[in-house]
Amino acid sequence: MRAVSIETGVTKHAEGSCLVRVGDTHVLCTATIEDRVPPFIKGSGLGWVTAEYGMLPRSTTSRMRREASAGKQGGRTIEIQRLIGRSLRAGVDRVALGERQITIDCDVIQADGGTRCAAITGGWVALKLAVKKLMKAGDVVSDPLVSPVAAVSCGLYAGQPVLDLDYAEDSEAGVDGNFILRGDGQLIEVQMSAEGATFSRTQMDQLLTLAEKGVGELVALQEAAVA
Amino acid sequence: MRAVSIETGVTKHAEGSCLVRVGDTHVLCTATIEDRVPPFIKGSGLGWVTAEYGMLPRSTTSRMRREASAGKQGGRTIEIQRLIGRSLRAGVDRVALGERQITIDCDVIQADGGTRCAAITGGWVALKLAVKKLMKAGDVVSDPLVSPVAAVSCGLYAGQPVLDLDYAEDSEAGVDGNFILRGDGQLIEVQMSAEGATFSRTQMDQLLTLAEKGVGELVALQEAAVA
Amino acid sequence: MRAVSIETGVTKHAEGSCLVRVGDTHVLCTATIEDRVPPFIKGSGLGWVTAEYGMLPRSTTSRMRREASAGKQGGRTIEIQRLIGRSLRAGVDRVALGERQITIDCDVIQADGGTRCAAITGGWVALKLAVKKLMKAGDVVSDPLVSPVAAVSCGLYAGQPVLDLDYAEDSEAGVDGNFILRGDGQLIEVQMSAEGATFSRTQMDQLLTLAEKGVGELVALQEAAVA
Amino acid sequence: MRAVSIETGVTKHAEGSCLVRVGDTHVLCTATIEDRVPPFIKGSGLGWVTAEYGMLPRSTTSRMRREASAGKQGGRTIEIQRLIGRSLRAGVDRVALGERQITIDCDVIQADGGTRCAAITGGWVALKLAVKKLMKAGDVVSDPLVSPVAAVSCGLYAGQPVLDLDYAEDSEAGVDGNFILRGDGQLIEVQMSAEGATFSRTQMDQLLTLAEKGVGELVALQEAAVA
Amino acid sequence: MRAVSIETGVTKHAEGSCLVRVGDTHVLCTATIEDRVPPFIKGSGLGWVTAEYGMLPRSTTSRMRREASAGKQGGRTIEIQRLIGRSLRAGVDRVALGERQITIDCDVIQADGGTRCAAITGGWVALKLAVKKLMKAGDVVSDPLVSPVAAVSCGLYAGQPVLDLDYAEDSEAGVDGNFILRGDGQLIEVQMSAEGATFSRTQMDQLLTLAEKGVGELVALQEAAVA
Amino acid sequence: MRAVSIETGVTKHAEGSCLVRVGDTHVLCTATIEDRVPPFIKGSGLGWVTAEYGMLPRSTTSRMRREASAGKQGGRTIEIQRLIGRSLRAGVDRVALGERQITIDCDVIQADGGTRCAAITGGWVALKLAVKKLMKAGDVVSDPLVSPVAAVSCGLYAGQPVLDLDYAEDSEAGVDGNFILRGDGQLIEVQMSAEGATFSRTQMDQLLTLAEKGVGELVALQEAAVA
Repeated sequence: MRAVSIETGVTKHAEGSCLVRVGDTHVLCTATIEDRVPPFIKGSGLGWVTAEYGMLPRSTTSRMRREASAGKQGGRTIEIQRLIGRSLRAGVDRVALGERQITIDCDVIQADGGTRCAAITGGWVALKLAVKKLMKAGDVVSDPLVSPVAAVSCGLYAGQPVLDLDYAEDSEAGVDGNFILRGDGQLIEVQMSAEGATFSRTQMDQLLTLAEKGVGELVALQEAAVA
Repeated sequence: MRAVSIETGVTKHAEGSCLVRVGDTHVLCTATIEDRVPPFIKGSGLGWVTAEYGMLPRSTTSRMRREASAGKQGGRTIEIQRLIGRSLRAGVDRVALGERQITIDCDVIQADGGTRCAAITGGWVALKLAVKKLMKAGDVVSDPLVSPVAAVSCGLYAGQPVLDLDYAEDSEAGVDGNFILRGDGQLIEVQMSAEGATFSRTQMDQLLTLAEKGVGELVALQEAAVA
Repeated sequence: MRAVSIETGVTKHAEGSCLVRVGDTHVLCTATIEDRVPPFIKGSGLGWVTAEYGMLPRSTTSRMRREASAGKQGGRTIEIQRLIGRSLRAGVDRVALGERQITIDCDVIQADGGTRCAAITGGWVALKLAVKKLMKAGDVVSDPLVSPVAAVSCGLYAGQPVLDLDYAEDSEAGVDGNFILRGDGQLIEVQMSAEGATFSRTQMDQLLTLAEKGVGELVALQEAAVA
Repeated sequence: MRAVSIETGVTKHAEGSCLVRVGDTHVLCTATIEDRVPPFIKGSGLGWVTAEYGMLPRSTTSRMRREASAGKQGGRTIEIQRLIGRSLRAGVDRVALGERQITIDCDVIQADGGTRCAAITGGWVALKLAVKKLMKAGDVVSDPLVSPVAAVSCGLYAGQPVLDLDYAEDSEAGVDGNFILRGDGQLIEVQMSAEGATFSRTQMDQLLTLAEKGVGELVALQEAAVA
Repeated sequence: MRAVSIETGVTKHAEGSCLVRVGDTHVLCTATIEDRVPPFIKGSGLGWVTAEYGMLPRSTTSRMRREASAGKQGGRTIEIQRLIGRSLRAGVDRVALGERQITIDCDVIQADGGTRCAAITGGWVALKLAVKKLMKAGDVVSDPLVSPVAAVSCGLYAGQPVLDLDYAEDSEAGVDGNFILRGDGQLIEVQMSAEGATFSRTQMDQLLTLAEKGVGELVALQEAAVA
Repeated sequence: MRAVSIETGVTKHAEGSCLVRVGDTHVLCTATIEDRVPPFIKGSGLGWVTAEYGMLPRSTTSRMRREASAGKQGGRTIEIQRLIGRSLRAGVDRVALGERQITIDCDVIQADGGTRCAAITGGWVALKLAVKKLMKAGDVVSDPLVSPVAAVSCGLYAGQPVLDLDYAEDSEAGVDGNFILRGDGQLIEVQMSAEGATFSRTQMDQLLTLAEKGVGELVALQEAAVA
């Protein structure tokens, strides 16, 4: 796995924030607390955690078109931000959170593969910092964050199972995926996907074992960052 | 698994078509052959298979807003049609297909859970029929369809691993997913996802075993349909 | 006129549904009852009937772009769905219907000319079935459907007035149109239109006579279908 | 019929222009000649005439939302501009016009019913002036305008057939329509439409007779304007 | 400065209207009074003045694409209409206006440079006429229009400071700008902008002196028009 | 003026980049060189410099809606990015640059007033670094950057002319503006704007004097950063 660092408190306005670096992939994550919730849970007493994702136009090797200027978020962006929100919610006790919404914005400053995994790992840190602020203020009494949530990418590169692919490896991997786990080892999301290739059940198993190891290391870094 | 039937030749214009019924989920799949390919492979000699997905507004219990009228495809639609295209391509030898595009349209006439899996299973049948037409005309000489591709949903329902969830079961399952496999047992895509829940590695294993069994049955039905 | 059939009860969720076949033109019509009405009649006690229309991408000889993906409904679609709604309302006593909305979705499964007329004819059947359900439940006491509504296309083909043009005839007809009538012979809508041609008042008269005959036959089939 | 006037040469940039006043309905019509044609007739040697229609936000009693700001043209706008283009083309010999496009812009400065008919009547005048310029310059040798095209609205108001309804009459007419004719009496388009009402074949006949008379008067005014 | 005329009362529906002509630049300005205000001042007792701007497609030498058809207002349009609204508000006592909104629509009928300045000058006249109507009706008691607001363009043309550039001059001026002043000589907005050129502070001074003179003349014409 | 720092080389992919900090306003500026130019100068031999601007959703005190998700760039964004591009071009010899485009992306990481000025000041640094790379590679031989370009905001705060307003000051200033100058003291753009207030010519003069001083300091920092 590439070198990982998590720097917290990087913007003064957000209720929680961090800059997570996984190798040359740098993602800025901020958490915003709002007292409103989406219409479908209004009055339920339950909280909500959601996420948005974006890439700065020149976070990549060649410049991408700015989505705001294109007039819509692409399919990849939509998939990723739904994944981030869903994954983080799996670590949240929504009753304990109470009827409020926390929005995690994940903006990729520099990309070199694995941005969605970095966003989830950093997103949890921003979320945790925001929740700590709520608890310190007495707005929330019992900690709604059941367990840390972290993510790592894996793939078959030159036929071998590999953890945490960078962009160059990812481009050549016919099979790759993302594993999102909780700190207690429970699985939240498994996404293995092949483009012009397939994989066997044995390989699936090897990748899962790698992922469990990787997430373990990430969780230790998350806990150090929010301490 | 619910009763499955595949009726071919259901529209006169498409190069391949079928109506796949998985329980009360009915999806109309058509294949369109075009001589153009997307810009990024122009001149490469490679073919392309892509898919689009839609639900008729009243395919569901209560009427959904028509996406054409809303002015955009929702995030769920985009996720699903990308999945269908990616899955089918995993069964295609794009060199043998030659520089042409086959578009699979999957339109849900009636929905009762598992529409994306039904779309992949039926989509492969429409694709196969279109390819047979190309081969019969001599436009393609070596069969580009390496292996059948089929999909089945699984989930944890009341704590138990269950195959092929209908809408009622799916709504209550905290963990569910889709498994896409080739006829030879190779995995193409695994998507396990939890909303407000998690799953263990053992449960993941049980679900995979169920999925292998389910896909085996679907492949037999696909092969009978295209014979 | 081409062979016409109307098959009812084709989807399990809708309050009324039919598949109408006019030659090789097949349109699926569903009716959805909702307790809300558009803002401009809220509180008036009046009901509303509206329609939406769509074509499956491969309902046609060559594939059309999916309107949901294009990001908007084309001018032709908008014209047609406004026509369907307006025509059906001409057969409805909106006081008797009460403050509720019935939406008729008309989705073309296979197209071979005359899809808007088939949609109106089938749309009325779906509407009638939904209204019968309302009356059976006692939600509506006096039948709001004053008279059946049906539509037929006509045109000048090779200089001769012709009823119910298929796609091949329609493409070559310089003058064509649609006539929408009630079962009692009253006219609801007349749309005669020329592209690169004109027509005389005598020809207009001959077409009207043909249309009256055609609609008479359609009304008999509608009444048999809903009996 | 209300007082009609046609003032030509009202803007200095357009190849043809007029301000047509039908009672209190005032429409500015301009013609633009371009050397390009739509893709579907490129290389055919045929010309094209098309139209766009708009209403100034405060052309109406209460202010309408500006369509440019709403982000799309409404269904009514699209219907109307398609009608204007189709109607004008019925008076054009597209071979004689040669491979060029004339765009007629019809912008409603003040509205009081019958804007689409005024737009067609004025649009023909702008078109004629542009064509005269082409002929004077020798770019077109044989006059492509076969016959004048004019339009008039009719309806049943208080049960009686009425010609050229103003806004107040139109709002109360359950049945109304538009008749587009050539100067030689040939019909181009008949659109009779009922909202919450119907009409008999006898009434249809009376309306047509009225329309023939009205169009005759309009054509005389058009010819005087372009002389 | 080019010849300027202001003709009032040009449309029957608007609460205030004028056609302002600055040389060959003709802009139709209308004022609409509504009892609602934007959400951000609801309940504040303050009024609001806003503006929208548009160009007819053939107001220019070659036809521009209609913004309604393009699906959005261009950047230039948005900049201009924000400027018009902001400038007019600088002459308004929003407490005296009371909680109502006046919308100024500025539609360019014919363009020859300086359309935004003409729109502001004419917009103030339409606004004044609407306010007079409010005062006559007793809806507003103390005149909310503190001072007239007028605008003039200036630029460096062939190295010399020039007032009120027409389109030909404007196209060649490397530096140009707009000055918006009140009748009492106070500045509201200064926009000097260079494209591929720069200007000195001395030139800036000369332009301001010219602008003060020009606005003085415009204000006299405005006051004559609304008298 | 607040403390200003300019850190270069902050992203590995861009041809030039810097993070400019003006007090608590932090803007990331990147420069992208492309061999294509906009259609309107294709084949002219001239280069082009353009800019795009965005704010991260939580760069502000309360979260703003992400423009990519809203589906369009707001009017303020469009105004600002047009200003940045126009200002930078005033310092560029487009013949010397040659037929290529440099795009400056300015993304606000943290906002506290004056973001557009910081973007211009930092944008010039990113531009300069990219141009140096072009010159080093021999792609450009004569330096196309005529003079540094920098910007500073000014306003009347509590009646007094003030340089470089932060967000709190800016919110209360009835009059504020932006001055963009070259290193040689020539003016590029002056934008003074009042909302519910006005300003005298004397105050305008005082603000210009302040701006000249502020830009002088910024230019020194720019030159140190790119040395």
